Amino acid sequence: MPLLLDLLGVFFFGVSGALLAARRGFDIIGSLLLAGLTGIGGGIVRDVILSEIPTAFVNPYYFIPPILATLLVFFVAPGVQRLMRPLLIFDAAGLALFCTSGTIMALDAGMNPFAATLLGVTSAVGGGLLRDVVANKTPSIFDPRDLYAVPAMLGAGLMAGLWVMGVQGWVWELAVASVVFVLRVLSLKFRWHVPKAVGPWHQDTELR
Amino acid sequence: MPLLLDLLGVFFFGVSGALLAARRGFDIIGSLLLAGLTGIGGGIVRDVILSEIPTAFVNPYYFIPPILATLLVFFVAPGVQRLMRPLLIFDAAGLALFCTSGTIMALDAGMNPFAATLLGVTSAVGGGLLRDVVANKTPSIFDPRDLYAVPAMLGAGLMAGLWVMGVQGWVWELAVASVVFVLRVLSLKFRWHVPKAVGPWHQDTELR
Amino acid sequence: MPLLLDLLGVFFFGVSGALLAARRGFDIIGSLLLAGLTGIGGGIVRDVILSEIPTAFVNPYYFIPPILATLLVFFVAPGVQRLMRPLLIFDAAGLALFCTSGTIMALDAGMNPFAATLLGVTSAVGGGLLRDVVANKTPSIFDPRDLYAVPAMLGAGLMAGLWVMGVQGWVWELAVASVVFVLRVLSLKFRWHVPKAVGPWHQDTELR
Repeated sequence: MPLLLDLLGVFFFGVSGALLAARRGFDIIGSLLLAGLTGIGGGIVRDVILSEIPTAFVNPYYFIPPILATLLVFFVAPGVQRLMRPLLIFDAAGLALFCTSGTIMALDAGMNPFAATLLGVTSAVGGGLLRDVVANKTPSIFDPRDLYAVPAMLGAGLMAGLWVMGVQGWVWELAVASVVFVLRVLSLKFRWHVPKAVGPWHQDTELR
Repeated sequence: MPLLLDLLGVFFFGVSGALLAARRGFDIIGSLLLAGLTGIGGGIVRDVILSEIPTAFVNPYYFIPPILATLLVFFVAPGVQRLMRPLLIFDAAGLALFCTSGTIMALDAGMNPFAATLLGVTSAVGGGLLRDVVANKTPSIFDPRDLYAVPAMLGAGLMAGLWVMGVQGWVWELAVASVVFVLRVLSLKFRWHVPKAVGPWHQDTELR
Repeated sequence: MPLLLDLLGVFFFGVSGALLAARRGFDIIGSLLLAGLTGIGGGIVRDVILSEIPTAFVNPYYFIPPILATLLVFFVAPGVQRLMRPLLIFDAAGLALFCTSGTIMALDAGMNPFAATLLGVTSAVGGGLLRDVVANKTPSIFDPRDLYAVPAMLGAGLMAGLWVMGVQGWVWELAVASVVFVLRVLSLKFRWHVPKAVGPWHQDTELR
């Protein structure tokens, strides 16, 4: 069951990667590569930090979700102008599943709860960050109009807290992931946001 | 001999990095760093995934090709406006050599043929991807006008297939690399390409 | 004391990340993430290459400097239009401390002086490179108007040279770091630079 949840996360992130590839006019192989990088990237970063050979390279099942994601987008993607919303929804689902599974894997590998929370957040935001960086889009984690890392931080912290209290199992993982998903989607819909990097007293005209 | 082929791949990728540095107006130290990142980057990613200390950090010979590449570009580069074609040719040569050597190294490290093929592709496209990402160019692997990852996938798959059948040796490695190089260059010349990420029935006006 | 110097480097790089986040209009969580990536990123790359679990994930102290950096920028940052100079100064301080500590850690891990110098440079420029790449800014190491990697290379080389001669200790580390910092700042002020990637005889109109 944990494997299944992880593969599902890879699939969701994979779809978001294939949708961005579609939006950018990449070809179907570029779509497969971006789906793979998005889906597997966060887990690779996580496993590399844990000094383990990445699961995706040990277990060939991990290659199926990106292929399915690419085909799904090829055959049933909406028109190019309407790709942004589904991209964000699939990305939110990947984020939710990875922040919980990443935290659990880090705890199982012997990390302290604090570092495990951070690694959970890293594996959750890592895939999407790699996707956006290689496709030359400003990463979603830096978009000040909604919450992206905050739900992942809450989810990873909650997961680590439950683990410390001895509460474990995939049902809890799924429950926490659902909370993260709902928070992320609500923040998109209602434009929840946090303050800017500089206090309001200092903001002069915006520079980029 | 395998070491020599690997160093040759580092050199070819290094020249592509130095040429991109020239095109972007970087200085000679930036050229050296980009040549090094391009030449050694794919191998570092490969070795990090294999949980090994990167060869380039163990064997000082690996620093010579990027230095030679930087000097070559400094002294004999064509005018800045004519850098794109040589960049692509040298990049193709690096791609060809790295997809075969990366696959072999992964197989030697005990990976299954499927994962080894993927790691071969990763080390082949990794250096060029890092080069393009840090120099803020849309990565070649996502250019829909020709084939980039496809020849590398074919080469890595072929190499893994030969290895499974017990056929080994640097002559075969060189032969497969030559096929990859020729395929890549022909795809550039004749604009061979694969379908877009979204099926043709859905493509409305292009967005970026 | 070495830990304190390392944490100070994380703080300086963290401030540079938070300042770039401010300049780009990111929110305070994006500021924290960019401060963390910049401060800890170079060390993570260093430790991953050394095949060790990154220090920052073992030692929770490493999370304090990015938090302090984010708060400092939030409360006392100058107006957005005047962020570039402090960004470069804090970045220079991080660069100086990391090129010395990275070299020492690589030597302590058993690398040869040459590879240790390279890893010192990698960990010094890595954090800033990650910062600039994810925030979509041309990396400082490629700016041809001043010297960025050169002071780090000199510092790392000097540190390795002292180590080979048996001269060790944090006083020396701090002395070398000071030299690197001064060199970097002087190169900014007086626009010291090295030749372009292509010899002057070949430079036609500039392309990007």
